[in-house]
Amino acid sequence: MEFRGTGIGQGVAVGPVVRMAERLPEPVDRPSHLDAAREEERARASLSVVAAELERKGRQAGGAAQDVLEAQAMMAEDPTLVDDIVKRLADGKTAERAVFEAFASFRDLLASMGGYMGERAADLDDVSQRVVAHLLKVPAPGVPNPGHPFVLVARDLAPADTALLDLTQVLGLVTIDGGPTSHTAILAREKSIVAVVGAADAAALADGDTVVVDAANDLVVQSPSPDEVAAAQERIAERAARAAAPVTPGALADGTPVPLLANLGSADGAAEAVELGAEGVGLFRTEFLFLDANTAPSVTEQQEQYTRLLSAFAGKKVVVRVLDAGADKPLSFLNDAHEENPALGLRGIRALRHSEVILREQLTALAAADAATEADLWVMAPMIATVEETRYFTELCRELGIQVAGVMVETPSAALIAGHILKVADFASIGTNDLTQYTMAADRLLGTVANLQDAWHPSVLHLVKHVGDAGRADGRPVGICGEAAADPLLAVVLVGLGATSLSMSPSALADVRASLARYTREDAERIARAALVAEGAAEAKSAARQAAESAPTPSGTTVP
Amino acid sequence: MEFRGTGIGQGVAVGPVVRMAERLPEPVDRPSHLDAAREEERARASLSVVAAELERKGRQAGGAAQDVLEAQAMMAEDPTLVDDIVKRLADGKTAERAVFEAFASFRDLLASMGGYMGERAADLDDVSQRVVAHLLKVPAPGVPNPGHPFVLVARDLAPADTALLDLTQVLGLVTIDGGPTSHTAILAREKSIVAVVGAADAAALADGDTVVVDAANDLVVQSPSPDEVAAAQERIAERAARAAAPVTPGALADGTPVPLLANLGSADGAAEAVELGAEGVGLFRTEFLFLDANTAPSVTEQQEQYTRLLSAFAGKKVVVRVLDAGADKPLSFLNDAHEENPALGLRGIRALRHSEVILREQLTALAAADAATEADLWVMAPMIATVEETRYFTELCRELGIQVAGVMVETPSAALIAGHILKVADFASIGTNDLTQYTMAADRLLGTVANLQDAWHPSVLHLVKHVGDAGRADGRPVGICGEAAADPLLAVVLVGLGATSLSMSPSALADVRASLARYTREDAERIARAALVAEGAAEAKSAARQAAESAPTPSGTTVP
Repeated sequence: MEFRGTGIGQGVAVGPVVRMAERLPEPVDRPSHLDAAREEERARASLSVVAAELERKGRQAGGAAQDVLEAQAMMAEDPTLVDDIVKRLADGKTAERAVFEAFASFRDLLASMGGYMGERAADLDDVSQRVVAHLLKVPAPGVPNPGHPFVLVARDLAPADTALLDLTQVLGLVTIDGGPTSHTAILAREKSIVAVVGAADAAALADGDTVVVDAANDLVVQSPSPDEVAAAQERIAERAARAAAPVTPGALADGTPVPLLANLGSADGAAEAVELGAEGVGLFRTEFLFLDANTAPSVTEQQEQYTRLLSAFAGKKVVVRVLDAGADKPLSFLNDAHEENPALGLRGIRALRHSEVILREQLTALAAADAATEADLWVMAPMIATVEETRYFTELCRELGIQVAGVMVETPSAALIAGHILKVADFASIGTNDLTQYTMAADRLLGTVANLQDAWHPSVLHLVKHVGDAGRADGRPVGICGEAAADPLLAVVLVGLGATSLSMSPSALADVRASLARYTREDAERIARAALVAEGAAEAKSAARQAAESAPTPSGTTVP
Repeated sequence: MEFRGTGIGQGVAVGPVVRMAERLPEPVDRPSHLDAAREEERARASLSVVAAELERKGRQAGGAAQDVLEAQAMMAEDPTLVDDIVKRLADGKTAERAVFEAFASFRDLLASMGGYMGERAADLDDVSQRVVAHLLKVPAPGVPNPGHPFVLVARDLAPADTALLDLTQVLGLVTIDGGPTSHTAILAREKSIVAVVGAADAAALADGDTVVVDAANDLVVQSPSPDEVAAAQERIAERAARAAAPVTPGALADGTPVPLLANLGSADGAAEAVELGAEGVGLFRTEFLFLDANTAPSVTEQQEQYTRLLSAFAGKKVVVRVLDAGADKPLSFLNDAHEENPALGLRGIRALRHSEVILREQLTALAAADAATEADLWVMAPMIATVEETRYFTELCRELGIQVAGVMVETPSAALIAGHILKVADFASIGTNDLTQYTMAADRLLGTVANLQDAWHPSVLHLVKHVGDAGRADGRPVGICGEAAADPLLAVVLVGLGATSLSMSPSALADVRASLARYTREDAERIARAALVAEGAAEAKSAARQAAESAPTPSGTTVP
């Protein structure tokens, strides 16, 4: 039996299934047979126990997970919530029901706010489940700990769960819900967990079933044959060998260099990226400096952070994207208006132009950090759609002492007029996630249209080719910094379409490096052409695979 | 003195300015010196007077305006609102202030709901202003009636104002706020009012100033010279002659036919469209059948409406778009989930696939109406992004007896893979409004990014060319049904890029017909090439104009 889903990364895993406990049923709304004071005692006790447990788990996990878990602990003891619970108990409800209802009403409130707040709704749900489980004296839904390595099968994972996964025990991950941009998928990508998400039929898997989780082929195989297990084991060994291979600069089989760079969201990941073979940074997101603040950070604060980053990459290229606020990352001091469609709103360079002082300060801090370090700083603007915007940005960069100024290509417009844009900008970097979103007119965070969110679609590839051709004509570098670059075969296609560097989560570097080394430039162009003329995403992927298989590959390797 | 704005249509007008009264200042929040009962009496009296007046105006206006005005009358007497006002009066506020605050809080609630409800916020504001004006015994903001023809200058128009404009008195319209997709712009387009919207500097115009409103050139001229007035009068006379010219089929100067079709939102406009020379219908929107309903209309109801429409166009082409629900037109029985970015959500064909029974019923009703009449029915699906969706739709059409099945090209993806799509679909129709929105990644209803919403942008023209080339290669018709087709010079460019028919508001037909007649196919292709290689929208427009001027035009006419 095989189940289809969306594979994250290129890994393969084999092991026994352990299912995560399902959500608790909704507590029945019946009058309590205890008095309200006794129910209140029960509720308060369970809330404290859960809060304490979340705090303990937070300390144990450390890092970003600690923040999430501590925020959840605070939710469990939020005075407004507790008041709401007590009020419901006074109406004669049970503690279970009152907790459920109070959390649910807060949850709806958060969800209606949308954006960042809306995403916290799932965290609140998770706390509610833990408290109700404690009241019912049943195990809390959450990550199981069977005492042996296992493949975790879950509907989807809450942030608290993912933070606590013991990666030495989890061989692989299969979710029934969730798409390629879900929390779980992002975690799997970051932590290099072999995962297939959104495999709806995997609900049929039971504890103890043996499965092959084949992320590269978007597949979960239930009760595999001995041959299937052996083949999977062989691929696992091959992949381990690739990861252990000496780190060499990214290049095609004919020696054409294709620098492999890292996507980073803060300076913290720099050391790990270098260790995994990043030849620089292809996308440094600067939102982390702004997201928790009520005002923009000072030039000095920013300069310190940028200096820290650039110091880790002496002699190497570091591409920094200026603040990309708006859409799913609104900032109170930059984005204030309510927008019907924030992804089509005042975001990226559009928002920065409205608050130019923020952009000027950021560029000033970047120029100062550049002067103080040995890295090769490139700076780029998000959400460019016109030549006029390109000129605005590059002129401001020059005025403020930035040497190399480029643009993100995320809108179809920027790709279609790349010839004009690359006469003004020093380089382009294609953000395939947003480019796909706008080309297909399908929200990349919306599950109901997730099937359209596929960078393999020939219309997206056409736009990449537009930019690649323009870059080649003007001798300007064209990077890729969207998720597409992390797919080893798609990476070859992108290079065949004219990309001159690829940037990705550091965990994907080894697979992509190995894949590029298999094909010459001529192969890559032939594979790209095969994908380009296909009629849809699936057809493009399979055409590329077929074209790749006909390339003479170095012995002992297989097409990714 | 000249002011720039966005011209709607191609007209010119000359006349004296009459300004619309500005919004009232916010009533001061000071304790009333009357007692609460007296203030309540005042408030209730003004509310009834305003409600009665709105109802009277509604009866006078009739049609769709009556619905809007009656809804406003109901707002003025809404019991919840009145309760809220009374509560505020009990706190010692004045009637003016209490009315202002109560309406404002409802207004915010509506605005936060967004979409259709959010748009009603302006209606509520308008009612509030009228009530406060009545309490203050000052003239209500609204359309003035000076007793002679005039050019109306306003910040923007409320729906109640636009419904009541006496078109025999209004020579032209200038707004300070509002963009090309504002309510005012839509009205001006529908009613062929000469208008320039969003002319920020027009705030300097005073009552009695003479102005030339030059929509074709996006210009308002204050205190024009006698020569400028004479030139404007000459253009007005030319345009009147064009409108009065015998209606001939749309064609280029060399005889190449370019059928000119009408965009219609209900069967009511059919007779007028035929009179204005429509050679058929290029876009019949079917949303009107569904928008006021809680369930889809029955097959029989639909069949009656479609039969009525098709009967008006015996022997002519009628292109019907199946239900385009979602985005700014959500339907309760079809779109239920909250979406962060509804324009990128489950809309058009995506929503219909999720509720296939609605699509099947609509196609069944259309096929029956087709069989019962003599028109040439073509049916198309909105929001197509893939070949797979195209195949789904055309196969369903064939199964249900629709002879000619095509697609709207509104997503960049559909344009980029038009070659594949037109191997499956019988025809394509380009919706330039949405295509521009997605290509530029800029919400077409959002004022802060309105500058990006311009179909003259070369990236949009590139996509039109993709579709045109594909249509030519496969011999499939490629229509245009977005606003772009109504711009006489852009219409020539679109034909030069491969459009084989143009559909527009019937009021634009005469200008476009005259414009097409000036250029040969070779001219049109040369003008299109000039626009295509420009770097931005403004540059494309001016390049096209220059190329058009070098074309040998029939004597006695000027380049539009």
